[in-house]
Amino acid sequence: MPASTVDIKIYLEKIKNLIESKLQRYLPSDDIEPKILHEAMRYSVMAGGKRLRPILAYSAFEYCGGNVDGDDLAIHYAMAALEMVHTYSLIHDDLPCMDDDDLRRGIPTCHKKYGLAAAVLAGDALHDVAFNLLASTGSTKVVVELAQALGTAGMIGGQIADVEAEGKDVTKEDVINIHTRKTGALITASVRIGAILGNASDEQLTNLTKYGEKIGLAFQIIDDILDIEGDTGTIGKPVGSDVELGKATYPKAVGIEQSKIDAQKLITEAVALVDKFDDNVLIELAKYIGQRNN
Amino acid sequence: MPASTVDIKIYLEKIKNLIESKLQRYLPSDDIEPKILHEAMRYSVMAGGKRLRPILAYSAFEYCGGNVDGDDLAIHYAMAALEMVHTYSLIHDDLPCMDDDDLRRGIPTCHKKYGLAAAVLAGDALHDVAFNLLASTGSTKVVVELAQALGTAGMIGGQIADVEAEGKDVTKEDVINIHTRKTGALITASVRIGAILGNASDEQLTNLTKYGEKIGLAFQIIDDILDIEGDTGTIGKPVGSDVELGKATYPKAVGIEQSKIDAQKLITEAVALVDKFDDNVLIELAKYIGQRNN
Repeated sequence: MPASTVDIKIYLEKIKNLIESKLQRYLPSDDIEPKILHEAMRYSVMAGGKRLRPILAYSAFEYCGGNVDGDDLAIHYAMAALEMVHTYSLIHDDLPCMDDDDLRRGIPTCHKKYGLAAAVLAGDALHDVAFNLLASTGSTKVVVELAQALGTAGMIGGQIADVEAEGKDVTKEDVINIHTRKTGALITASVRIGAILGNASDEQLTNLTKYGEKIGLAFQIIDDILDIEGDTGTIGKPVGSDVELGKATYPKAVGIEQSKIDAQKLITEAVALVDKFDDNVLIELAKYIGQRNN
Repeated sequence: MPASTVDIKIYLEKIKNLIESKLQRYLPSDDIEPKILHEAMRYSVMAGGKRLRPILAYSAFEYCGGNVDGDDLAIHYAMAALEMVHTYSLIHDDLPCMDDDDLRRGIPTCHKKYGLAAAVLAGDALHDVAFNLLASTGSTKVVVELAQALGTAGMIGGQIADVEAEGKDVTKEDVINIHTRKTGALITASVRIGAILGNASDEQLTNLTKYGEKIGLAFQIIDDILDIEGDTGTIGKPVGSDVELGKATYPKAVGIEQSKIDAQKLITEAVALVDKFDDNVLIELAKYIGQRNN
């Protein structure tokens, strides 16, 4: 049941509870060996977070008419898989040889808590659980979607470009190129995977893909803005780290005021791409991303 | 066309050439960005090696009556995927925080040549390309097979147990437990994936699974033996490193002579599990593994 304009927060809370329960269910138990690794995987995945990717998959699935009644549905597998690969990417991204972050979601990063070897392997293992879950949907198409979004043409390519751009002058196009791959590819894939599992028409899939690309970029621009104007306690990681590292951020290329304008423009464009009916969650979600402060 | 007893080496050479050409074809080009990462992926994958896992997949596929004529067949995707995930596991396993190896297949390891960040990401990206290829077979079943073989119940679980056992006294059962997961799971999955794509009967799949388990364990026992009695130039990595690290090896648990006897017993048992017809490559492959010196 889509939410009305006024209860998007209640809707988000409901889907977040759903994803938390599915993650608990599909993550390997830390009562079985290798316990320390299962504990590390659960530590990072269950540390909270917005659960944006599974929420987008669910909402796109529902938007396309997918049936959300039942346990262990294909969409549930996909939601858990998306959050697990997102967490895997954060764990590896936080490693000392990468971004070298000590704090994530307000608590020590995986390698700070469990050591380097466990962090590398916890990320690798989440990667495998995710593909196992996604294949369990019975659709090879969504497996291909995820693999492409994560690979060198997507997220990993964006990570490399991000590191290479550190300390350099960047244009708006450079930043869009990095953001589109580093964050955008997985966000877009989340929308597409939900849509594919919901049997989207070709037209729906085309529009939802553009919708995903626009909110994905808006999401990352706002992330860049929050790194400058946000509050450490609210966003769960140190403010100002992007500037310190000389990262390629959108505000660095165009200034903070123009960044805000462009982010809102992307949100408006995303909203225009989906059908206008009452209580359309995809519209509310896009607006919510445009207003987020953490 | 299966090989006769006398030309197993010619057969292996033929399949190795096939897999080399498929790897060249399916690995991302190092002419496109991120070039350095694509170069690192190719460096490690194309560094040679026995190509045992794709050879096993191919032979099991052929044994079950799969059609090997044509380009870009499902079995070709699977062969490339298996070699890529094997290489991914070696790259991450060689990292300083894991086994800290400088040399692999006679050349510097990926992180020695390209740095830590590139090595972590090259492994991750190979992981993704492999799942993309495997999903491109159209079978979700083989995706699940691979994900389970790689995960914490398989290879990664074995790696953790391997590290935890360093410097400790181990029984034969401990070592079998580690080897079965660390090396055996992917070898068994290779045989099973070939068999599944070749439309194996239930009985064939059951027997081939046992065959894979036995040659997988034999392969690793012989690896342990070669670490003691082998020649650095032939095996491409320093001899004696297992003993130096206090690794859980089969010879450490039962002695080197008993190890040789047990490895040959496993080979004999594996051979007994497959149908007896002339030029049965699975029989020749098992014997070949039993006699390998690198």
